[in-house]
Amino acid sequence: MYFGGDWLMRRFNIPDSEFIRGKVPMTKEEIRILTIAKANICPEDVVLDVGAGTGSLSCEAALHAYNGQVYAIERKAEGIELIKANTEKLGIGNIKVIEAEAPEGMEQLPKLNVAIIGGSGSKLAPILDKIDGLLVTGGRIVLNCITIQTLSQCLEYMRQREDYEYAAVQVQVSRWKQVGPYDMAEAMNPIFIVTCVKK
Amino acid sequence: MYFGGDWLMRRFNIPDSEFIRGKVPMTKEEIRILTIAKANICPEDVVLDVGAGTGSLSCEAALHAYNGQVYAIERKAEGIELIKANTEKLGIGNIKVIEAEAPEGMEQLPKLNVAIIGGSGSKLAPILDKIDGLLVTGGRIVLNCITIQTLSQCLEYMRQREDYEYAAVQVQVSRWKQVGPYDMAEAMNPIFIVTCVKK
Amino acid sequence: MYFGGDWLMRRFNIPDSEFIRGKVPMTKEEIRILTIAKANICPEDVVLDVGAGTGSLSCEAALHAYNGQVYAIERKAEGIELIKANTEKLGIGNIKVIEAEAPEGMEQLPKLNVAIIGGSGSKLAPILDKIDGLLVTGGRIVLNCITIQTLSQCLEYMRQREDYEYAAVQVQVSRWKQVGPYDMAEAMNPIFIVTCVKK
Amino acid sequence: MYFGGDWLMRRFNIPDSEFIRGKVPMTKEEIRILTIAKANICPEDVVLDVGAGTGSLSCEAALHAYNGQVYAIERKAEGIELIKANTEKLGIGNIKVIEAEAPEGMEQLPKLNVAIIGGSGSKLAPILDKIDGLLVTGGRIVLNCITIQTLSQCLEYMRQREDYEYAAVQVQVSRWKQVGPYDMAEAMNPIFIVTCVKK
Repeated sequence: MYFGGDWLMRRFNIPDSEFIRGKVPMTKEEIRILTIAKANICPEDVVLDVGAGTGSLSCEAALHAYNGQVYAIERKAEGIELIKANTEKLGIGNIKVIEAEAPEGMEQLPKLNVAIIGGSGSKLAPILDKIDGLLVTGGRIVLNCITIQTLSQCLEYMRQREDYEYAAVQVQVSRWKQVGPYDMAEAMNPIFIVTCVKK
Repeated sequence: MYFGGDWLMRRFNIPDSEFIRGKVPMTKEEIRILTIAKANICPEDVVLDVGAGTGSLSCEAALHAYNGQVYAIERKAEGIELIKANTEKLGIGNIKVIEAEAPEGMEQLPKLNVAIIGGSGSKLAPILDKIDGLLVTGGRIVLNCITIQTLSQCLEYMRQREDYEYAAVQVQVSRWKQVGPYDMAEAMNPIFIVTCVKK
Repeated sequence: MYFGGDWLMRRFNIPDSEFIRGKVPMTKEEIRILTIAKANICPEDVVLDVGAGTGSLSCEAALHAYNGQVYAIERKAEGIELIKANTEKLGIGNIKVIEAEAPEGMEQLPKLNVAIIGGSGSKLAPILDKIDGLLVTGGRIVLNCITIQTLSQCLEYMRQREDYEYAAVQVQVSRWKQVGPYDMAEAMNPIFIVTCVKK
Repeated sequence: MYFGGDWLMRRFNIPDSEFIRGKVPMTKEEIRILTIAKANICPEDVVLDVGAGTGSLSCEAALHAYNGQVYAIERKAEGIELIKANTEKLGIGNIKVIEAEAPEGMEQLPKLNVAIIGGSGSKLAPILDKIDGLLVTGGRIVLNCITIQTLSQCLEYMRQREDYEYAAVQVQVSRWKQVGPYDMAEAMNPIFIVTCVKK
């Protein structure tokens, strides 16, 4: 077996195979690892995960914020069920699930140390405005962008904000599968990860 | 500032800029994050870092194995100095530096939970044999391969070992630099990361 | 030697090493090959190359349009000199060089079958408008985008034009260099190639 | 329609959509373009395509060698049928199809100017030996490698041959698909293209 549970003791990455997925697209392991690492989550942090999907990012964030709290916003009922199923499977108790389409559902949130945006529908700017109102100085926003339009909107937004600095990377992972005597590439789609720090 | 110290409390990634580097090539941040994540290091683990270079992987491993021990083998005197300088700068106390060309210098090592191979000179097979003799069941070997020959030797070795399973990924990261009003790509060299688990 | 002249007889790609370059950035061989291939240049075609730089794309276009004409627009004097030097070196006679910053310098152009945009400064939309006024039905515009902003502007422009269809690809090439007994990757920056066909 | 026929007059790339494919894997457009370009095929050349599959590379080679001859070796009956169907559809008359598993079927071949190896089964070295016996000085072998093992064998073979020089590139293409208002990446598997020139 690739790796075994006991998550609350060991705060390293959870492999894709550990998550219940259904038909909801899930952030792949390597992207999840990099996203969480760039979020620099501390034990007491309050973290928001927008467009939580299966909750895979929320779950890993919750393991790093083990004395803190994670809020997971997801608009689809199927996603909500999967997040609950995955938190239960992994024995994670510090995730609050909010069924809403962001920026809705953010009214009651406390101050945030970290916001992760895995999906933004078509409302990135209002979501970023809402997050900015809650984010502490030194806080971070980490976005996974899979479309040129979302990436472009994110860069445009951050370029207009002198109180933020950002770093963008594109990550392309290929998994080399064992097929008989050969190792053959299986390309995964490239993702842009934008890390924004509030000054 | 991109991010601040206090490493022993917060076990997340250390950015490239925090390391003293000299002319020794250093594993880049994203590759270091993925390598450490795939190594699944636990607090009490004993970790070996072969071809430690600047010690960047050793330092991050040491933060995860905060109740354990890291052994860093490096053949170059300049590397040895850098590893010592970096551990001191980061306030890391659980790294033992061994100046040798692996597989030499491994005679006195205890049982290992994890071995990281950043550089193997031209002696990968004997290094893997030596590690295998020390590695516990369920232990991991994570290799960063930057040449086709090292990758090929690694895959060939692991395919002959029925007591290991491996997963290989290739990671290509491009950093999108802010140049005036534009974001322009700066490609980093692709790396193969091979994760081997002893059954 | 990697490959020898006589270009007018053989219409295949010209390696980077054949071009005089100076300090002007040059489209790399693999990107040039794909750009020219996607431009589908016919022997009698009239081709425009905007932001011609060293003229490497103009020269290859001229070999395909061997009974046609290529117009190369470049704003920098150094570029103009390089284009002239390269056409002379390769014995190409069907390139007219225009020293101007596009869309300036396009007033006198005839109908175009193909337009290649290697560089657009910050004036992509007006350049595309000007090209559209000259481009025949079934004609093509092929853009090389190295920034997210240029790519985004290009996609936004084409999405508003129902009389164009486009296909965008991102190409990442790594050259594996022979270093002693090893083959090591040297990553080249990723490029977006957008092919637009006028319906 | 993306682009129209009349191949014998215009020697540019044929899009994937023009080929009849069945279930046989086909070299994708961008890889085909680069492979053919690096083969430097001249009008009178004799070209061998080993592991021809659907014949897509054979067909493009035949358009460049329009006064020459292409020999396409393929072991699978389905492939043979597809090659014949594609040559007929495109009106190409200078391809001879050989149903055999290379290096078998190469006995009767004349001197070769170019050899393209799209698939080598597990017999790369004997195939390269056979090709070497037929290849003229200055002739080229261009290989598409999709496995680490084939790539590694190819590099090892060429490193032992002082009468050849080679250049290896890895190409990763992502197609950005238009999905509603977004452009989303669809990664294609990375391919290694090795170009070998006989000195």
